[in-house]
Amino acid sequence: MQCISEDMSAFMAEVVKEEQQKKHKGDTATTMDVVDLEDKELFGIAAVGTDGRVEQGAEAGAKFPLESVSKALGLALALEDVGADYLFRHVACEPRGDQFNSVAAIEQGENGLPSNPMINAGAIVCTAHIKGKNGDERFARLLQFVRDLADNQDIDYNKKMVEEEEKDVNRSIFYYLRGQGLVVGREEDKLVPYFKQTSIEVTCLDLARIAAVFANAGRCLKTGKALISEETVRIVLTLMFTTGMYEGSGRFAVDVGIPAKSGISGAIMAVVPGRMGISTIGPALDEHGNSIAGVNMLKKVARRWHLGAFDMQNVINTANKYQHKN
Amino acid sequence: MQCISEDMSAFMAEVVKEEQQKKHKGDTATTMDVVDLEDKELFGIAAVGTDGRVEQGAEAGAKFPLESVSKALGLALALEDVGADYLFRHVACEPRGDQFNSVAAIEQGENGLPSNPMINAGAIVCTAHIKGKNGDERFARLLQFVRDLADNQDIDYNKKMVEEEEKDVNRSIFYYLRGQGLVVGREEDKLVPYFKQTSIEVTCLDLARIAAVFANAGRCLKTGKALISEETVRIVLTLMFTTGMYEGSGRFAVDVGIPAKSGISGAIMAVVPGRMGISTIGPALDEHGNSIAGVNMLKKVARRWHLGAFDMQNVINTANKYQHKN
Amino acid sequence: MQCISEDMSAFMAEVVKEEQQKKHKGDTATTMDVVDLEDKELFGIAAVGTDGRVEQGAEAGAKFPLESVSKALGLALALEDVGADYLFRHVACEPRGDQFNSVAAIEQGENGLPSNPMINAGAIVCTAHIKGKNGDERFARLLQFVRDLADNQDIDYNKKMVEEEEKDVNRSIFYYLRGQGLVVGREEDKLVPYFKQTSIEVTCLDLARIAAVFANAGRCLKTGKALISEETVRIVLTLMFTTGMYEGSGRFAVDVGIPAKSGISGAIMAVVPGRMGISTIGPALDEHGNSIAGVNMLKKVARRWHLGAFDMQNVINTANKYQHKN
Amino acid sequence: MQCISEDMSAFMAEVVKEEQQKKHKGDTATTMDVVDLEDKELFGIAAVGTDGRVEQGAEAGAKFPLESVSKALGLALALEDVGADYLFRHVACEPRGDQFNSVAAIEQGENGLPSNPMINAGAIVCTAHIKGKNGDERFARLLQFVRDLADNQDIDYNKKMVEEEEKDVNRSIFYYLRGQGLVVGREEDKLVPYFKQTSIEVTCLDLARIAAVFANAGRCLKTGKALISEETVRIVLTLMFTTGMYEGSGRFAVDVGIPAKSGISGAIMAVVPGRMGISTIGPALDEHGNSIAGVNMLKKVARRWHLGAFDMQNVINTANKYQHKN
Repeated sequence: MQCISEDMSAFMAEVVKEEQQKKHKGDTATTMDVVDLEDKELFGIAAVGTDGRVEQGAEAGAKFPLESVSKALGLALALEDVGADYLFRHVACEPRGDQFNSVAAIEQGENGLPSNPMINAGAIVCTAHIKGKNGDERFARLLQFVRDLADNQDIDYNKKMVEEEEKDVNRSIFYYLRGQGLVVGREEDKLVPYFKQTSIEVTCLDLARIAAVFANAGRCLKTGKALISEETVRIVLTLMFTTGMYEGSGRFAVDVGIPAKSGISGAIMAVVPGRMGISTIGPALDEHGNSIAGVNMLKKVARRWHLGAFDMQNVINTANKYQHKN
Repeated sequence: MQCISEDMSAFMAEVVKEEQQKKHKGDTATTMDVVDLEDKELFGIAAVGTDGRVEQGAEAGAKFPLESVSKALGLALALEDVGADYLFRHVACEPRGDQFNSVAAIEQGENGLPSNPMINAGAIVCTAHIKGKNGDERFARLLQFVRDLADNQDIDYNKKMVEEEEKDVNRSIFYYLRGQGLVVGREEDKLVPYFKQTSIEVTCLDLARIAAVFANAGRCLKTGKALISEETVRIVLTLMFTTGMYEGSGRFAVDVGIPAKSGISGAIMAVVPGRMGISTIGPALDEHGNSIAGVNMLKKVARRWHLGAFDMQNVINTANKYQHKN
Repeated sequence: MQCISEDMSAFMAEVVKEEQQKKHKGDTATTMDVVDLEDKELFGIAAVGTDGRVEQGAEAGAKFPLESVSKALGLALALEDVGADYLFRHVACEPRGDQFNSVAAIEQGENGLPSNPMINAGAIVCTAHIKGKNGDERFARLLQFVRDLADNQDIDYNKKMVEEEEKDVNRSIFYYLRGQGLVVGREEDKLVPYFKQTSIEVTCLDLARIAAVFANAGRCLKTGKALISEETVRIVLTLMFTTGMYEGSGRFAVDVGIPAKSGISGAIMAVVPGRMGISTIGPALDEHGNSIAGVNMLKKVARRWHLGAFDMQNVINTANKYQHKN
Repeated sequence: MQCISEDMSAFMAEVVKEEQQKKHKGDTATTMDVVDLEDKELFGIAAVGTDGRVEQGAEAGAKFPLESVSKALGLALALEDVGADYLFRHVACEPRGDQFNSVAAIEQGENGLPSNPMINAGAIVCTAHIKGKNGDERFARLLQFVRDLADNQDIDYNKKMVEEEEKDVNRSIFYYLRGQGLVVGREEDKLVPYFKQTSIEVTCLDLARIAAVFANAGRCLKTGKALISEETVRIVLTLMFTTGMYEGSGRFAVDVGIPAKSGISGAIMAVVPGRMGISTIGPALDEHGNSIAGVNMLKKVARRWHLGAFDMQNVINTANKYQHKN
C-alpha cells in the first residue's frame, strides 16, 4: 500500500489546477523583487512519500528562496548541535501571535526570551547557536544540512539577495538579543548566516524531499540513515504546528492540522508524520504572510485525505501506511 | 493488545507515588477555598483506555470542580450546537499567550475577537452559544453532556461555589463581549451557565472517562455510539494542543505533546487519540496555573510511553492499538 | 487692563469665521445621533475673562452634551469630596496614550489602576467617589456643582441620551474596577451617575464660564467665593494639560499649551490660568476624537496671544492681568 | 525683589539636610560604576535665579554625568537646527508611559514614531538631527551648546564611560529607527554622539545655570543674548512637563508641577519659568529611575514656594519677579 495513492495524486493535480486558475491577488514580499525568479507567477506543488514516491504539479521545478521556511531547518540543526535544554534557555517555545519581525516581541516575551523559534528573533537565536568557528563555517554547515535533507548537492544561496535585502530591522533584533546576552559575538559570525539561510534557493521538489525526511522520523528515505534525531523531529514538528504559519498558525492548525512552515516567498513546507512531505509555492500572500493558494491546497488535501494530526481517520491511515513500510 | 499495558500501569503507579512524595509547593486557586473538598491535598491520576481498561492511582475517587477544564467541554457542545463556521465568527482560534482572565485580550485580540476558546472571554462566548431557551436549559444541556461523556448521571455542580465565587472580572468580560455584539442577552441566560460549568464536580475517573471518549473519536466506549462528532473532536483536540495549558501551552506541547486542558483546581484532562484518556489532580500550581504534579506525571508518562502527538513512536503505537479495536 | 482685550475679541471673531468656512469633514460621535441638537452643524466659541468680560462667536448659545468634558468636573468634585491622597490610591495620574474607552488600559495600567481620570475607567472611579448616599444624590450633587460653576441653575441632563446610549463597554469597565476593589457598590449607585454626567447639556457660554472659575483659582467671578479649592484647581489643570485631549494630549500641549478637556460632542473647555476660560464647539472630530475646528481655533488664539502655559510671554501677560484684578 | 529670597534659601538648605539624613535606599544605575565619581554618595542642590543669584547646598560642586538629562538639551539643539515641523515628523510628542529604553515603544508608538524625545529612541532621533558633517562635529556642537548654557567652558565628556558602557540596546534602537527611515547614516555619525552626550559631566551648579537660561526664556543671564529661541524653550519645557520624569512624569506633574528632566545618574534639572533653574543630585533611584531625594526636595520646595506651573500663587509670584527683572 502506498503513502500517496493514485487517487490522492489525481486529487492533488486537480487542486493545483483549481487554485492556479483563481489567480489570487495578494501582496508579494518586497524581497522577492531582488530575486531573479524564473517566473514571478511561480506556482506549484510537490509531494514525496516516506516510501519515496514523488508527485509534482504545475512548475514544481522552479527555484525560490526559502525565506522563513529556513527557520524550521535552522532550528533543527541548532537542536542537533546544542540540544533542547540549552537552546530553550535562549529562546522560548510559546505561540504568542507576535509579528514575525517584532523587536517588541522580545521585550514583552516569555521571560525576556524571543517567544519562539519561528519569529525572526527566535530564528536568529537558533542560527547563532549552530556550531561553527565563524559565520562562514556556521552557514556552510547549515547549507550542507539542507543539501543532505533534500538529497541535492546543487542547492545554494542567492548572493544578490543577501546583498540587497533590507537588513536594519533584523540588525536591530540582533543587537537587542546581544544586549540581553542571548547571542554573543559579531554580526558577520552570528547574524550574517541567518541572512544567507533565508536566501537558500530550492524547488518545490527539494522542499518536499526535506519534509519527507521529517515525516520519515528524520531518516534518509533511501538509506534509512538518521539525518535528524527523532527528538529533534518531534520538537520541530510541534513548533511548526503551534507557530509555523505566522499569526495564522492557530487557524491553520484547526483548518488544516498539518505541521507546516511558510515563508514570504510564498512557499510552505508541510509534514505528514509517517507518511509524506508536501511543498507548495504560490506568491500571493494573505494578511499573515502565508501563501493563499498554498493554504487552500493544503486544506483541501488535508481534509479530503484526513492528513491532520488530530483527524481521527489519520490515526488509522498513518498507522496502516507506516506499518507497511517498517 | 491493550491500550494500557501492564507495564504502563505499573509505571503510572510509580509516577504518582514519586510526585506525591515531592509535596510540591505552589499557589492554589482562591476559589478552591469555597469548595468543601474532601481533601485539600487531593492527589490522583486515572487513565481509561479506548478499550475500556481503567487505571487509577492515589485518591482518584475524590471530587473537585472542573474549573477551566470545562472550557474544552463547553467548546465541544457549542461546536455541536452551532458549528465551527458560525462559532469562529465570534471567537478566534489563535494561541496568543493571553492571561486567562484578560479583558485586554479581547480588545487587542484577533480582529476584536477573544483570541481562543480556552481563555475566559472565549469560553464565555462558547457557552453563550450552547442551545437552550434560557440559562437554566443551556446549563442543563451542558451538564447532561458531561454526565453522558463520563457515563455518570450523578455528576452535579457546586451551588455554594457559584454563589460565593468572585464574579466581577468575568462579568466585565461578558459586558465587553456584549458591547462588541459577540454575545447577546442577559447575564442569567448567557453568563451564569458559564459560572455553573466551572463548578461541575468530578473525580479523576470521571474526567479520564470523558477524555477517553475524545480519544475514541467521540464514540461511547461501551456502545460505540457517537456522543461527539469526529469534526468536533478534531477541533477541540487541536485547540487543547495549542492553547489548553494557559501560557504554558507551547512548552507543554514540546515537553509532553498530548492535547490537554488544565484548571486551577489542579486538574488536567489529557487525550491520547486512539488510545486513552488520562486525568490528573494535584492542587499546587505553577506560575501559569497548571498543576505542577500533573504536568510532571504527564511528561513522564508521555515520554516513556511515546504518547506525544509528534512522537514518532506514537504514530506506530497508536496505530497498533487502534486497529485492534476497530 | 482687560483679560480679553478688544484686539483679542476681534481676532477670535475672525478665527471662528475662518474655521466655520472650512466645513471640516470628520467623524461625529454616534451618541450624538441620540441628541436632538438644535443644529447638528453646531459651531461656536465663547470666552469669559476672570474679570467677567464675555465674548461669544457663532452659535455660542446652542446646547450640547458635555460628554468627556464632564470628566474634568467629576474629577474636581471627587477631589473636593475625598481628597487627592485617597482618590489617587484608586486612579493613577499618568498619561499613557490609552484609548479613552479601554478596559485593557486598567489591566496594563499603573499598578493595576486606571492610568488617569481622563480615560473612561479613571472617570468612572472619580464619579463613584463623589459623596452621596445613592446614585441619585451623587449625581444631584455633581449637577449642582456644574450649575454653580456655570452660574446657570437651568442646566440639566438629557434623559433620552442616558436611556438610549450604548452602555456595555462602560459597564464592562465598571465590573472590572469593582473586581479590583477600586469601586464598590451597585451599578445604579456608582455607574449611572457617570452616564448622566456625560449627558449634561450646556452652551459654549456655560462652559466658558465654568472654565473661567478654574482660571480664577476656583473662585466665583462675581463674589470671589471659593467654589473649588486652589489645590483641586491645580491638580485638575495639571491633568487637563497632560491627559485632557485623548491620545492627542501631548501634541496639543506642544501646539496649544493650554490645559483643556475635549468631548466627542465636539466641545472643548480650555483654561488660561489667571486670565480666562474659553470654550469651543465644532462636531467634526479628528482621529483622536478632538474637534478639528476647536483645536485649530485654540491653537491660533493661543499662539497669537501667548496663552500657552510655557509661552514666555504668557508668564508676563498673565501676571499683568492677574495683578490688576487682585 | 529677588527670584530666590532669603527665606527660600534657608528653606532649601533645610530640605537638603533633611533628605541627606534619610539615607535613601534605592537602585543606582549600573553605568555609574564606570564613572570615577569623586563621591558615590554624591548629594546636592543648586538654584540659580534669572537675576543671577546662586544658591548651593551639600556637595553641589561634585561632577556627575548628565545621562538622560542630556535628552532635553539634545532636543533643544535639534529644534534650533532643523525646526519643530521637521523634527516632529521623525519623533512624536506624546507621553505614553513607555520604558525609557524600549524598542517596543517605537513599534507600537504614535504612527511608528518614537513616542517622544525623552525616551531613548526619541532622543537618538533628536541627536541624529543635530547639524554636523560627521559624528565628531555633531557632538562638538552639542558640547559647545552645553558649555555656553552653563557658562563653563571646562565641561567635557567622560571617554571611559563611553567606551565601557553597554551599548547594544541603544544600537538595537538605532538600527530599528534606521530601518524605518527615521535616521540615516552610520553608527559613528549618528549614534555615537548620543552615547557621548549622556556622559557629559557637570556639577549641580552647572546644571542649575543651564536650567536658569531656560527659565530666562533662553537668554543668557549676564548678557541677555538669546542662546535658545523662545519657541524652542516653550517646546522643551512642555515636553519636560509631560514626559521628563520617565514613567513617573504624570505623578511628578501633579505633585511638583515644575518642568523637569531626570537622569539615572540621580540628577534632575528643573525650570521655573521666569524665575529660576534648580538642579538636584542624589543617586538612590525610585522604581521609575528618578532620584528619590531629588523628587522629595523639589516637591517640598515647589509646594512651599508655589513654583508649580498650575499653582495659582505661582502665576502671581512669577509675574512679580519677572517684571522686576525686565
